[in-house]
Amino acid sequence: MKRYLFCISFNGFRYSGWQVQKNSITIQKIVQDVFESVVGVRSDVVSCSRTDSGVHAINFYFHVDFKLRMSLNRLQFAINNKLPKDILLKSVVPVKDSFHARHSVKKKEYIYKIWNSNLKNPFLNGLALQYNRKINFEVILKAAKFLIGEHDFSSFCCYKSKAIDKVRTIYDIDVKRKEEMVFFKVVGNGFLYNMVRIIIGTLLEVSEGKFLAEDVKHILQEKNRSLAGRTISAEGLYLSDVIY
Amino acid sequence: MKRYLFCISFNGFRYSGWQVQKNSITIQKIVQDVFESVVGVRSDVVSCSRTDSGVHAINFYFHVDFKLRMSLNRLQFAINNKLPKDILLKSVVPVKDSFHARHSVKKKEYIYKIWNSNLKNPFLNGLALQYNRKINFEVILKAAKFLIGEHDFSSFCCYKSKAIDKVRTIYDIDVKRKEEMVFFKVVGNGFLYNMVRIIIGTLLEVSEGKFLAEDVKHILQEKNRSLAGRTISAEGLYLSDVIY
Repeated sequence: MKRYLFCISFNGFRYSGWQVQKNSITIQKIVQDVFESVVGVRSDVVSCSRTDSGVHAINFYFHVDFKLRMSLNRLQFAINNKLPKDILLKSVVPVKDSFHARHSVKKKEYIYKIWNSNLKNPFLNGLALQYNRKINFEVILKAAKFLIGEHDFSSFCCYKSKAIDKVRTIYDIDVKRKEEMVFFKVVGNGFLYNMVRIIIGTLLEVSEGKFLAEDVKHILQEKNRSLAGRTISAEGLYLSDVIY
Repeated sequence: MKRYLFCISFNGFRYSGWQVQKNSITIQKIVQDVFESVVGVRSDVVSCSRTDSGVHAINFYFHVDFKLRMSLNRLQFAINNKLPKDILLKSVVPVKDSFHARHSVKKKEYIYKIWNSNLKNPFLNGLALQYNRKINFEVILKAAKFLIGEHDFSSFCCYKSKAIDKVRTIYDIDVKRKEEMVFFKVVGNGFLYNMVRIIIGTLLEVSEGKFLAEDVKHILQEKNRSLAGRTISAEGLYLSDVIY
């Protein structure tokens, strides 16, 4: 038995997120079934993260312990051959037994895509949030500064979260426009349930004038979810990278 | 009653093409239903073209004769509000009664998108052909030259076509790469059933070495569908523009 780290990319549009659950099609279920049919054994797949229903990933990692009986190239080819068109196995590499897809994570980077136009884009259904209001980059970046650093993010966490320790570190928040597409980037050492979506929702409400940039500091201090902005739709959210 | 020209864009992935047919969801059916619910009368919608199942459009035109009882902006807004996320009404303009969405067409431009990589792109399912072989641009452009001009395109037409006159003029064929995406462009005065798809399929077979560039001249002269290459998948095909 050896440990291997798999990197996949997926379009989450038609899936109920990563994690196996009853009566839903999840990415983990599909991946485990394909893995079993190729390798011949049912193995536990340990992932870097969960993802919400509809969330996408550019680079999503999981590790599996198993006895490899073919070349890594052959394994990758066979798995890709059986995966549906919206899930891709990008790479498989051997790792040390001490490596853990979740515990070894140092940083995670999320991208949130917004199609910012009066006219929707019919080719982006499920792949970006369609949003027609003017985006005030200056005030968003001003508000985002209050979130950078180590904080208790209880105000930016879904009330259903079971996490006891809600302290996380955000290293960077940025927002850029490329024609009609606006890209938010959020980098941190880990994220609570819905945390990225509530952060982006709150920053958009700052842009909309519902909050002042300075209000974000206060919202954070109060540790009260009801003070922050809306949980934005999952469709624009991409787990873009994980740094180990 | 006045005549109006509508320009729509659609992602054809989940539709059985443009034209109304029994037991299928078509774009025309959706558009006519939405038009009726907004304007209050059932109107005939006369389009620039049919499209095959799964084909997309960046600019697709149709005209309708009706009595407008609101501003054009209001009409566009109301229709967009009721259209599904994968169909967009880009513009509506009044036109002369002598204008006809199909008969007045001077040129049509099609784009064919190929994701040319060993690794599929999970975000392009239905939006581009995934193709992993090396593309030989030089030989494709050499073969394409034989197709430019006025010719009988019987060899590049589905045998189910009911067209009597199979003479069409192709003004331009081009192919360009932008990173992993390869874009074919075909411009002509009109196209037969599956004509663009058979042209691209044949040019790819030239690239694959199944035909020589010069064979395309011979295939054209023979007016025999069975001599040309495969009808390529609809998923990468976009009606990109119509010139009136």
